[in-house]
Amino acid sequence: MKTRNENRRSFLMKGAVAGGGLILARSCLAGIPTGGTRESKSRQTRDHANETLNTIHSLRTIHGNFTEREIPDETIQTILHSSVRAANSSNMQSYSIVVVRDRNTMHELCGYSGSCLLLYCVDFTRLKECAVALGDSYCPDTIVDFVTSSINTALAAQTAAIAARSLGIDVLFTNGIHRGDMGRVWKLVDLPREHCFPLIALVMGYPTEEPAHKAGRLSGAGVIHYGKYRRPAKPDLDQLIRQYDDPTLHLGLNDSWSSEGHKHYLDWLFKSWLRREKPTDRRTQMMELLAQSGFIEQQGG
Amino acid sequence: MKTRNENRRSFLMKGAVAGGGLILARSCLAGIPTGGTRESKSRQTRDHANETLNTIHSLRTIHGNFTEREIPDETIQTILHSSVRAANSSNMQSYSIVVVRDRNTMHELCGYSGSCLLLYCVDFTRLKECAVALGDSYCPDTIVDFVTSSINTALAAQTAAIAARSLGIDVLFTNGIHRGDMGRVWKLVDLPREHCFPLIALVMGYPTEEPAHKAGRLSGAGVIHYGKYRRPAKPDLDQLIRQYDDPTLHLGLNDSWSSEGHKHYLDWLFKSWLRREKPTDRRTQMMELLAQSGFIEQQGG
Repeated sequence: MKTRNENRRSFLMKGAVAGGGLILARSCLAGIPTGGTRESKSRQTRDHANETLNTIHSLRTIHGNFTEREIPDETIQTILHSSVRAANSSNMQSYSIVVVRDRNTMHELCGYSGSCLLLYCVDFTRLKECAVALGDSYCPDTIVDFVTSSINTALAAQTAAIAARSLGIDVLFTNGIHRGDMGRVWKLVDLPREHCFPLIALVMGYPTEEPAHKAGRLSGAGVIHYGKYRRPAKPDLDQLIRQYDDPTLHLGLNDSWSSEGHKHYLDWLFKSWLRREKPTDRRTQMMELLAQSGFIEQQGG
Repeated sequence: MKTRNENRRSFLMKGAVAGGGLILARSCLAGIPTGGTRESKSRQTRDHANETLNTIHSLRTIHGNFTEREIPDETIQTILHSSVRAANSSNMQSYSIVVVRDRNTMHELCGYSGSCLLLYCVDFTRLKECAVALGDSYCPDTIVDFVTSSINTALAAQTAAIAARSLGIDVLFTNGIHRGDMGRVWKLVDLPREHCFPLIALVMGYPTEEPAHKAGRLSGAGVIHYGKYRRPAKPDLDQLIRQYDDPTLHLGLNDSWSSEGHKHYLDWLFKSWLRREKPTDRRTQMMELLAQSGFIEQQGG
């Protein structure tokens, strides 16, 4: 299935092949590797297509409009057993996955609901309690434990998302669990107070309608760096700003930024979208809860 | 390709089908969903096989023994263009991927080398500099920004790992970048000091030999919770400890824990492996660097 973005791209590619001097337009497009020839790009696409890559490229976000249709329990099991296959440090699987099928609970957790929600939590409880049972001790109480485990947790979550998509199920990742009073998340699903932290929710289901388009992605200067990190220069920044403004690239969240009085999409993003929550000098609730959970180290030393 | 673990599992399944009273043994095994009938398990396996799930189940970690064979640049491009397809909050792609092909640099970064290393960094530089260019302001200086972006970054990294595996390339995720003096990572690839943090390295290549077995994973009590979080009870803990001790499940990192004088594998894990770095009351270097990077909020308020 070709997205509008891809259609535009192949149009421009044809234009370039026809000698239309569209190199600039082509390099402006998200998703075109720099430095490759047209021929190598075609060969790449031909040689590298496989079902897994197709699944990955078919990932799209459904914003809550899931139908009432339920995912069978067995399919959820297949997704969970794929999820745990992700790599994880020292094979400790320092996470927990809470499977929520009650739509009201899902909504209270994150503001969305679908057929099933997987709540991915950084979690050392199982390991800590094994240590206690053995008379050993284990205190995963540094930010290193939290960050390492967050990575493991997110790797497992994305594996579930890709497995689900391969089974014709659509997904929504949401950090809605971190909005509002986060304490509710602990209460709603009985999470342990210490060394357990809800990281991301994956809502799964079947959409009421196909999304109008697939979101675009940047993959050029400022995102991917070769050899060493290269700060975006002025022309890179100008190009990035133009890319976000280009409605055919679908990089933005809001098509009406212009009619809302902004010169560029990014002006809307910075001035309006990212200011939703008033900035404050106080610690965020997340910081407080990470400290309560035991992951924020003492200042002293 | 069946792993030894799967062979054992199908042996036990046959035993159970033959009326061998092996239900306990069966439920002890990692990877068997609880509550399903034998028939539903077989049906699940048959109905749900697809190439993407096969790719996910073929993921395995190669610990540094990569050959000199190089991955073509076009293949790296295919992997990168898959990687950025992962969901990310507000489509801001608040990460950078540094592509390292110099094997010495890889080794200095993380202690391993292969044909290509992708260094996944939480990174707001591109967005911050766009804001400056537009006369806007943007200060992603809370732990919420860091955690949200870490999730986005890890989702992209796992997508790359799965894409690579679908192309016959093996991978190693390593947080070796967080060992030793982490400052070297910034220096080696010129990372910005502020609002950029190296999260995880993905080393890719072709292995010198097939791994002897695939690592097992837990997927029962204490890892996956239904409806609400359930703390592992005494029988769950006993079962977990037994599972880690069972050499056929390949849950451990070290087969010689017993000859090293430990009663259980987890004793070795807690007493030896996790004590590699002496515990300290001081802040970790990661905490210091996160603070330097601008992600650790002030205590006051």
